[in-house]
Amino acid sequence: MQKLTQLIHAATGREPADIVLKNGKIVDVYQGTFFRGDVAIKDGKIAGIGENYDGKEIVDLEGKYIAPGFIEPHIHVESSYVTPEEFGRLLVPHGTTTVMADPHEIVNVAGLKALDYMREAANHTVLDIRYMLPSCVPATNMENAGAVLNAAEMVAPLEEEKAEGLAEFMDFPGVVQARDDVVNKLLVAKKQKKRIDGHSPMLSGKDLNAYIAAGVENDHECSTVAELQERISRGMYVFLREGSVTQNLRTLLKGVTRQNASRCVLCGDDVQAKTILEKGHLDHAIRICVEEQVDPIQAIQMATIHTAECCNLHDRGAVSPGLKADLVIFSDLNHLAVEQTYIDGKLVADQGKYVLPLTRANISPVQSSVHIGDFTKEKLCLKLDSNQARAIEVIQTEALTNEAIVEVDCDETGEFVYNPEKSISKIAVIERHQNTGNVFVGLLKDYGIQKGAIGTSIAHDSHNLIVTGTNDEDMALAVETLKEQGGGVVLIHQGEVLCRMALPVGGLMSRLSGEEVTAKQDHVNEVAHGTLGIANNVNPIMTLGFVSLAVIPTLKITDEGLVDVTKSQFVPVSVVEV
Amino acid sequence: MQKLTQLIHAATGREPADIVLKNGKIVDVYQGTFFRGDVAIKDGKIAGIGENYDGKEIVDLEGKYIAPGFIEPHIHVESSYVTPEEFGRLLVPHGTTTVMADPHEIVNVAGLKALDYMREAANHTVLDIRYMLPSCVPATNMENAGAVLNAAEMVAPLEEEKAEGLAEFMDFPGVVQARDDVVNKLLVAKKQKKRIDGHSPMLSGKDLNAYIAAGVENDHECSTVAELQERISRGMYVFLREGSVTQNLRTLLKGVTRQNASRCVLCGDDVQAKTILEKGHLDHAIRICVEEQVDPIQAIQMATIHTAECCNLHDRGAVSPGLKADLVIFSDLNHLAVEQTYIDGKLVADQGKYVLPLTRANISPVQSSVHIGDFTKEKLCLKLDSNQARAIEVIQTEALTNEAIVEVDCDETGEFVYNPEKSISKIAVIERHQNTGNVFVGLLKDYGIQKGAIGTSIAHDSHNLIVTGTNDEDMALAVETLKEQGGGVVLIHQGEVLCRMALPVGGLMSRLSGEEVTAKQDHVNEVAHGTLGIANNVNPIMTLGFVSLAVIPTLKITDEGLVDVTKSQFVPVSVVEV
Repeated sequence: MQKLTQLIHAATGREPADIVLKNGKIVDVYQGTFFRGDVAIKDGKIAGIGENYDGKEIVDLEGKYIAPGFIEPHIHVESSYVTPEEFGRLLVPHGTTTVMADPHEIVNVAGLKALDYMREAANHTVLDIRYMLPSCVPATNMENAGAVLNAAEMVAPLEEEKAEGLAEFMDFPGVVQARDDVVNKLLVAKKQKKRIDGHSPMLSGKDLNAYIAAGVENDHECSTVAELQERISRGMYVFLREGSVTQNLRTLLKGVTRQNASRCVLCGDDVQAKTILEKGHLDHAIRICVEEQVDPIQAIQMATIHTAECCNLHDRGAVSPGLKADLVIFSDLNHLAVEQTYIDGKLVADQGKYVLPLTRANISPVQSSVHIGDFTKEKLCLKLDSNQARAIEVIQTEALTNEAIVEVDCDETGEFVYNPEKSISKIAVIERHQNTGNVFVGLLKDYGIQKGAIGTSIAHDSHNLIVTGTNDEDMALAVETLKEQGGGVVLIHQGEVLCRMALPVGGLMSRLSGEEVTAKQDHVNEVAHGTLGIANNVNPIMTLGFVSLAVIPTLKITDEGLVDVTKSQFVPVSVVEV
Repeated sequence: MQKLTQLIHAATGREPADIVLKNGKIVDVYQGTFFRGDVAIKDGKIAGIGENYDGKEIVDLEGKYIAPGFIEPHIHVESSYVTPEEFGRLLVPHGTTTVMADPHEIVNVAGLKALDYMREAANHTVLDIRYMLPSCVPATNMENAGAVLNAAEMVAPLEEEKAEGLAEFMDFPGVVQARDDVVNKLLVAKKQKKRIDGHSPMLSGKDLNAYIAAGVENDHECSTVAELQERISRGMYVFLREGSVTQNLRTLLKGVTRQNASRCVLCGDDVQAKTILEKGHLDHAIRICVEEQVDPIQAIQMATIHTAECCNLHDRGAVSPGLKADLVIFSDLNHLAVEQTYIDGKLVADQGKYVLPLTRANISPVQSSVHIGDFTKEKLCLKLDSNQARAIEVIQTEALTNEAIVEVDCDETGEFVYNPEKSISKIAVIERHQNTGNVFVGLLKDYGIQKGAIGTSIAHDSHNLIVTGTNDEDMALAVETLKEQGGGVVLIHQGEVLCRMALPVGGLMSRLSGEEVTAKQDHVNEVAHGTLGIANNVNPIMTLGFVSLAVIPTLKITDEGLVDVTKSQFVPVSVVEV
């Protein structure tokens, strides 16, 4: 008998359902309310809502709330430092049942074979991880990544439905300039009627019109209410982001109204395992909304039905007949704490624990990823033409940076000299994919390192090696150590490796559990803020990793130079009066 | 240069737009408000919104409102009595720029070749007429139509994108019963990821769950607030209908809230040319909303963005960059009167006039449609076993009817005798497609005919001939006359044809203009209410045509018998005590 026939029989009550969740308060995301009732499930789908359904299994919810599973519209699994299987284990207990992932980080390292690895790994978790195709590999034409993905190479993965559409189109200057290579990528997606996600920090007016006219549908880079409202009024969905570092939610909620809420969805973007374990994911974002006086069901709508609509997921996002039986159970609407998660009608998380066995995909296709020759400290010298220099100034809780014009000390040869009185250190990006030998050295302000060096292979978005420190010896040792351990994070002091976190999967992800990775990260943070004296208001790993993200203003560094993102051009470190 | 490149150039202002509408109040359907600005258009698309756009043509709107073109989610062109080309000419000046048409009436008459004719005719108008594939041809298995469309025959038109999805699935009992032929049709649409429109009058509870679980996405047959709210809470879009006869809008608006409005859209379903000319279309529905205290922009949202979303039309429905430049211009938000309509960036209607030349498709494929043999009055005799009988009681402004148990007069042979004291007349349906000779005679209450007979080839949904009258001679002459003129409407009195309206296109549509058809219809109404004495509160043609619509409760008549729609079974005319 057809499954659809069986579903209809279960819906009418002619046949018993597989499972009936009785005595629930069903969150009605269509009408912004809830009502008491039962949910009958058949073959992983919701068959009916109402009363007196009979089922092979009956669960009495004793008046608890039933909401649709939470949907994440844009996230990078890699930023959790764990692999997709583990990512699923961490998110599902928090009520997340679907994520639209952008495997942009690892594809920048290993190309399309990394997409295949990520898809295979996703098959090992019940979390529905769907992928968008990284649209900007490399993110700009001012850096070297491990792969280059042009329009022609994008046709197959979209046709074969390995990806749902184009992931955040970070090269917004290329779109606004209508550069041919960019237009060709957009046309590939349009031809296949695929979605195009956006990334347009600080874009506005006619340039924003152009970006939207080009077919880009959403943005998760708003940091002001004015940006949010302009984007919504021009037809974009706005993703209200609450990541481990980039936290725009509370600010943006001030611009969300009953009228425009249907164009607003909650998003994580970059969330570390540590954050998931300590705060949660979309459940955490919903709690923040409620703290900020948003109606709790409106907050849930922004994590369910609105997200489903903006992602063209017509088979989920609500508790209604025919939809995927992805459900979260909780007791208090005003202090949402997920007690149980159902996916495809099966209990998959209970009281914070993922209840399914864990299996893992083979990581060998993406394992060896650091390819550099011998490294010596001479490569780190920074000769300046002036005591005035451009430094990248970090901003707490933002991937945005400022350009700071600073006074620095130099020796007689013009070589930069670290001055403990100033919060300015050398920062170097070392190309690690094709052993080009590219190294660029610049200056970093307010990261606050006072001793030794810290280095990582997580350096958005090309993920070359990035290192900062107070002296070239420790910085060079950091590079060598990263090379040896195949990527990760290392902290060095006086020629000694104080602490290391291995990230063998593309130099981005660990093979460990979220708890173990968090313990490692806690140790990194402890040593970073302790011995190395890095400022307490920065996230040692993620803040450092964003300093090379040359698609987010203002001043960034790549293996090719210092980038003025707004002008999208290289600028010198030295500021010479003319 | 790629069109997309040109659009981006125009959006940024690097290149002039084709046309700029300046000094408008732009209706922001995303945020339920409006703002002052200009709209720049390039190649039929909106390039940008804002100020200081330069264009080859500049139009100063002097502060008038610019809203998105109105979108009709479900309508039957045939019910206007004019062909698609003319339908476009009538609707566009009222701001309608897209319609989702269900060519169900003519496909019941002529099969898929009628769909081809309707598509060809649509190419002769600038109105974007898109078709859904009639899902129930015939509408029930209790009648004979001119064609039978089963699941297998539905694959090609959907694959070839001749149709956007399955039109209103009227056989809701078949869905609820999960009848194999019905399930197969649903699976054809699901396999191709196509939409499925609904039709579920009075369905509720578990049966409604089943209908929705089956994949049906919307309903336009709600007549109460309770039906509306139950459907929305179960995931359906509800179409608030305001047709020539079926007028549910004012009632249903009482159930529309700020919260659920995004699931509510305005709809016409069956709208005669006369109604369009005298009242309008969606503009008329919007005015009714405003009369009923709905916020005017919310009313516009229900005719634009919400409709676009429920119909998966992602390229229209708002005034925003990249979308189709389908726009309506008007001066007063509280008394919406469309002054100009733009489609694809071109002015197509100005001050109520369609400004493009008219051309017409060839009607020969659907011209000859009345196939019956000689007809004699003997075929109209109605022998009853009792003086108690079931009569179909018409309800003003509804396609719904009641079952009335009435006392009737019979002669000694049991033959029904018309009694001027009672508002009960014979009604007959004569199969007209394959000359089966099927004739069924029943009783009609409160239509109110007092003299002669009226007959028409518009008899939903199989469109056999339907005739009612006070005497068999005039009824038989009506049938003969309809046969001669190839369908239409005829009014007979004392052996004379008092008035006729020819509908040569499938026996459903005229070749005349909307104004001419309206004049004919006015004459029909005048004679119907005058000489024939038909009740003033019924619409002589449309009310009669709905009496055979065996998918809308309660009691209906087909060429095979009297149908109890709720039980979906035949019932006898006579009521015999047991």
